[in-house]
Amino acid sequence: MDPTQFDRRQLLAGGGAVFFCTLAGHRLSLDQPADVAKLAAGVPVPPRVAKPDGAAEAGAVTAGAGKKANTRQYWIRAEQVKWDIVPSGRDQMMNSRVRGRTRFPAYAYRPYSANFGSPLGPATIPGPLIEAEVGEQVVVHFQNHVDVPTTIHPHGIFYAEEMDGTYKGRFTDPGGFVQKNRTFTYVWEAREDSVGTWLYHDHGPMDPLPVFKGMFGPLIVRDPGAPSPPDKEFFLIMHSFSPVATQLNQQFACVNGRAYAGNTPTLRARVGQRVAFHVIALDDDFHTFHLHGHRWVDTSGFGTEGNPGTGKALDTKTLGPGESFTFEFVEDNPGRWFYHCHVFSHLHMGMNGWYIVR
Amino acid sequence: MDPTQFDRRQLLAGGGAVFFCTLAGHRLSLDQPADVAKLAAGVPVPPRVAKPDGAAEAGAVTAGAGKKANTRQYWIRAEQVKWDIVPSGRDQMMNSRVRGRTRFPAYAYRPYSANFGSPLGPATIPGPLIEAEVGEQVVVHFQNHVDVPTTIHPHGIFYAEEMDGTYKGRFTDPGGFVQKNRTFTYVWEAREDSVGTWLYHDHGPMDPLPVFKGMFGPLIVRDPGAPSPPDKEFFLIMHSFSPVATQLNQQFACVNGRAYAGNTPTLRARVGQRVAFHVIALDDDFHTFHLHGHRWVDTSGFGTEGNPGTGKALDTKTLGPGESFTFEFVEDNPGRWFYHCHVFSHLHMGMNGWYIVR
Amino acid sequence: MDPTQFDRRQLLAGGGAVFFCTLAGHRLSLDQPADVAKLAAGVPVPPRVAKPDGAAEAGAVTAGAGKKANTRQYWIRAEQVKWDIVPSGRDQMMNSRVRGRTRFPAYAYRPYSANFGSPLGPATIPGPLIEAEVGEQVVVHFQNHVDVPTTIHPHGIFYAEEMDGTYKGRFTDPGGFVQKNRTFTYVWEAREDSVGTWLYHDHGPMDPLPVFKGMFGPLIVRDPGAPSPPDKEFFLIMHSFSPVATQLNQQFACVNGRAYAGNTPTLRARVGQRVAFHVIALDDDFHTFHLHGHRWVDTSGFGTEGNPGTGKALDTKTLGPGESFTFEFVEDNPGRWFYHCHVFSHLHMGMNGWYIVR
Repeated sequence: MDPTQFDRRQLLAGGGAVFFCTLAGHRLSLDQPADVAKLAAGVPVPPRVAKPDGAAEAGAVTAGAGKKANTRQYWIRAEQVKWDIVPSGRDQMMNSRVRGRTRFPAYAYRPYSANFGSPLGPATIPGPLIEAEVGEQVVVHFQNHVDVPTTIHPHGIFYAEEMDGTYKGRFTDPGGFVQKNRTFTYVWEAREDSVGTWLYHDHGPMDPLPVFKGMFGPLIVRDPGAPSPPDKEFFLIMHSFSPVATQLNQQFACVNGRAYAGNTPTLRARVGQRVAFHVIALDDDFHTFHLHGHRWVDTSGFGTEGNPGTGKALDTKTLGPGESFTFEFVEDNPGRWFYHCHVFSHLHMGMNGWYIVR
Repeated sequence: MDPTQFDRRQLLAGGGAVFFCTLAGHRLSLDQPADVAKLAAGVPVPPRVAKPDGAAEAGAVTAGAGKKANTRQYWIRAEQVKWDIVPSGRDQMMNSRVRGRTRFPAYAYRPYSANFGSPLGPATIPGPLIEAEVGEQVVVHFQNHVDVPTTIHPHGIFYAEEMDGTYKGRFTDPGGFVQKNRTFTYVWEAREDSVGTWLYHDHGPMDPLPVFKGMFGPLIVRDPGAPSPPDKEFFLIMHSFSPVATQLNQQFACVNGRAYAGNTPTLRARVGQRVAFHVIALDDDFHTFHLHGHRWVDTSGFGTEGNPGTGKALDTKTLGPGESFTFEFVEDNPGRWFYHCHVFSHLHMGMNGWYIVR
Repeated sequence: MDPTQFDRRQLLAGGGAVFFCTLAGHRLSLDQPADVAKLAAGVPVPPRVAKPDGAAEAGAVTAGAGKKANTRQYWIRAEQVKWDIVPSGRDQMMNSRVRGRTRFPAYAYRPYSANFGSPLGPATIPGPLIEAEVGEQVVVHFQNHVDVPTTIHPHGIFYAEEMDGTYKGRFTDPGGFVQKNRTFTYVWEAREDSVGTWLYHDHGPMDPLPVFKGMFGPLIVRDPGAPSPPDKEFFLIMHSFSPVATQLNQQFACVNGRAYAGNTPTLRARVGQRVAFHVIALDDDFHTFHLHGHRWVDTSGFGTEGNPGTGKALDTKTLGPGESFTFEFVEDNPGRWFYHCHVFSHLHMGMNGWYIVR
């Protein structure tokens, strides 16, 4: 059996509560690290990964050298982590207890100091913000410590073919198949048409399992000629944890890895502050982001000037997998407000949180 | 058992044809008013509702007084009503009979004259249009006559925290938990960035049950400096009635509380008239609104000027729960046209209607 | 039994692998041409089709004469064809074999030379591109050779009521019910607000079955005052083939009738070329179109000038059934890139392909 053929349909249909696949007559559970390691060991290494061609090598080496003056370097490791989706055990929206288990073995990106010297914090879902200004080169040293080959695939920023971070079958470059305990250095460029908020995520051979287990994060490219950044910036990723990825008994609709107000980010601002919301979606569903007590003009293009968009103010906006948008306003309305997905089932599976203005 | 814990998952999954919850060992059906009353009686009253603090009281009192000159007042009552989703019993699109029961016990907003003197019409789904011009204060006296606590939560218009109409667990203000036979007065403000078409709906402790049973309506804020209103305005809310909310045997995809052409609104206009469509979505699904025989430039921002939007004409547009948009044109194409959701399953579950131009 | 009452719900729910309906006590399978013919034979002919009124006749005759100088004529026949969704039998993205049957009896539009003299190519999914410039009349001679009544309903272009190509129950015009072996001539007009990329599809009495079996295609209206057309233009329709329409054992998520990279269109361009992507969606789902290695400014309105749209570059965009958009760029990034739907389950059910830049 070809282990890349594990039954993705089971994962995608989302029906079952336990995700098994069968390898050489043995049933493996993706909840068991030893089983996952067995599965991953059988994935064939693509030809260009086994023997990388010159271009890919050169790219990696150049990147590692960080030769450009205007370069931002990141050291990011993929790690396995026990993640609690509802750490408080409560849903503050309904003032109720959340029943059942809420911890599962997740995959997450973790930021490190130079040369992976020491962690800059815990592994988190979403991963660390990757940030650049137009004109800069972004160098991401990626080390994979999870049991399956993974990658980092960015949105919005410029990257050459071998820096795509994508599994492409027999056309896969080394950056699209980073095996356990290996490192690959991605080099990307923040160009003018990259301005805005984007995301990055795994796009390796086990896709979408690592994404469904937490391997994604926000990326922003700023325009250095734009007005100064806002006083408060919030990055919110709307996604879900499904039973087949978590082995838990229920589906959770999440913001930033957590479900239910009091667990999802509690955002805080003061009247008079310039506030920016960066909203991203990344699961199998479509969402409508709704913020109580506020409206925004749908310019998107945070950091750009003179783009009135449709001109109509919004308080709710659709976005689907891989999309992102930004809105900004000067805060004028004190109170305890909800932000939430306006899809009612997502709202009640946890996709809500507090925005508190004093 | 905490009755706020009734099994919302059953409601949201939409699988079952009968919606039960269990309270103290007894099975309750949300089809039975007596059962619903039992359930509602057990919902704990949030602390600020039991003893409202000064701010909320003041807000309500001020509003009741309607002190500003430029104030529009509405008296709206939530009522229980037998609602027929397909009153004609026929689907004119397929020229066929609609089988099965189509009446169910709905919840609906009903407009009254001052001080709830007398009804201005029947309780309808959607509820009455709430209308204001920029600069005006909108005062909505809301009386709840259904068996569960409900509210009015508006979109787009400005409201202070205690006028949010939202259940927030132990942080709930009196306007977020209006018990049966109680009244709350909401005070909102139509500001410049509120121009456009929006919606209002229940956002109380039983959410989304009351919305799924019919508690929603359109809200428009007009720019007094804009050109005169169009000759014809249509407000269309795309939503659904699911078996768990209606106890009927099938799912209906609806426009304004009805399913299938001949039951949904039959819109009429004449060549040469300026016509505006205001389209709103509010259920658990995404929709694409399609109008035959016509195109519109997607300016949105009805009532605003000089916003070319994307410039490309559309005849189909995506919108998700809580979203709304407006388009306007001068009628030039006589005929019997369909408007419908272009999601095929929604179209065939009833989300279609006639637009007749003479 | 009224055969228009065949169980569309089975088709739309998408649950079963075999699509049966019952007619006069006999079970019919839509996989069997003889059964489909039996079903179609029982569909009542709408009154205006049986005895077309003057207007409809006149329209058809005028069109047939092709009297305007600036007229484009098309001869298109709907045909039954064995269609292979995965002709290579492989998924190049995962470098794996696609198991199970992938051929089914499809319906497809096929272009012919004048007066249906000879085919201009095979019947394809999607059908041939219908193209016009603003100011032109488009005349489509449509001949139906499939077993059920079908039509052509266009988006975006101007058409009078009787040229709508839509089944409307007892209000149906002849163009909305073209029986087997009959011809109807549609006459449409490319007006200024029709500029852009659209689609056409069946909208007859068996809707959505013929669409789900392949009866759809792209339509473009160009602005003659716009800059010269791009060097490369790609028309991509995101749709699906479900078991109830194909009688196959699995759901396929497709681009242009095929599933999985290496079967879907492999697009090719060279650095320096002006490239346009025209993206259309037409099934029961929402999609987000994602292109690797590229960004585009969301102007839509291909062919129009001075419409900056939201100004923010995108690399992923939501579109739902019946929607379409266009983006254009000058190619600057050589490589083997993926285009795909970013909804993970669609991606892994086949909605992906290669874009190769040299």
